[in-house]
Amino acid sequence: MPADETPSPAIWANIDSMPSLQPRQGVTMWPATGTNMMINFVRIEPGAEVPLHEHHNEQGGTVIEGSIFMTIDGETREMRAGDVYIAPPHSIHGATAGPDGCLVVDVFSPPREDYVAPTS
Amino acid sequence: MPADETPSPAIWANIDSMPSLQPRQGVTMWPATGTNMMINFVRIEPGAEVPLHEHHNEQGGTVIEGSIFMTIDGETREMRAGDVYIAPPHSIHGATAGPDGCLVVDVFSPPREDYVAPTS
Repeated sequence: MPADETPSPAIWANIDSMPSLQPRQGVTMWPATGTNMMINFVRIEPGAEVPLHEHHNEQGGTVIEGSIFMTIDGETREMRAGDVYIAPPHSIHGATAGPDGCLVVDVFSPPREDYVAPTS
Repeated sequence: MPADETPSPAIWANIDSMPSLQPRQGVTMWPATGTNMMINFVRIEPGAEVPLHEHHNEQGGTVIEGSIFMTIDGETREMRAGDVYIAPPHSIHGATAGPDGCLVVDVFSPPREDYVAPTS
């Protein structure tokens, strides 16, 4: 390791015991925050929406359960298990959960400063 | 978007049609490569192993199917669906698939240069 880098500890977590955020109705998030990345479990209730927005953080993810309609820069696709997307920094993106809702994993790099969960 | 950044296109992919790599016996990877992150589906056959190694890329992930024994800096934990880990840059880590094998999602930030798949 380069001498100017402070070692950080490994992170081990589980969705059932992680602190959660509810940034809007029908959307619950469980973020794990590292140095370069945030790995975020996101559960979205059936039909609930994350409106179009943009940020400097690159965002990517995949679907664990259910389905989600993802929009990135004007293109909308239905995503299910086995699908993966990456939304570039500053792309305009949003999502609507499918009829059964969804559990997805979203990754942010760098981490979303506004989603960092309290550690105590 | 800052004037000095070139916009990159969104990435949409599916494990059934993505190029794959087989870096060692029993380990198959399907990487999607962005600017700051690589999102990598990894299928590991029952009992197959990724030996201890280290790299400058931070690595994190979760389990989609099955189970995996992850080791980071001397600590080993069994991971299943709902678990998430982040292995810091330069941590010494490795893994062995559980008795039913596993499908995991590993994320690298920055992307692993040696796993970038051919785009044609």
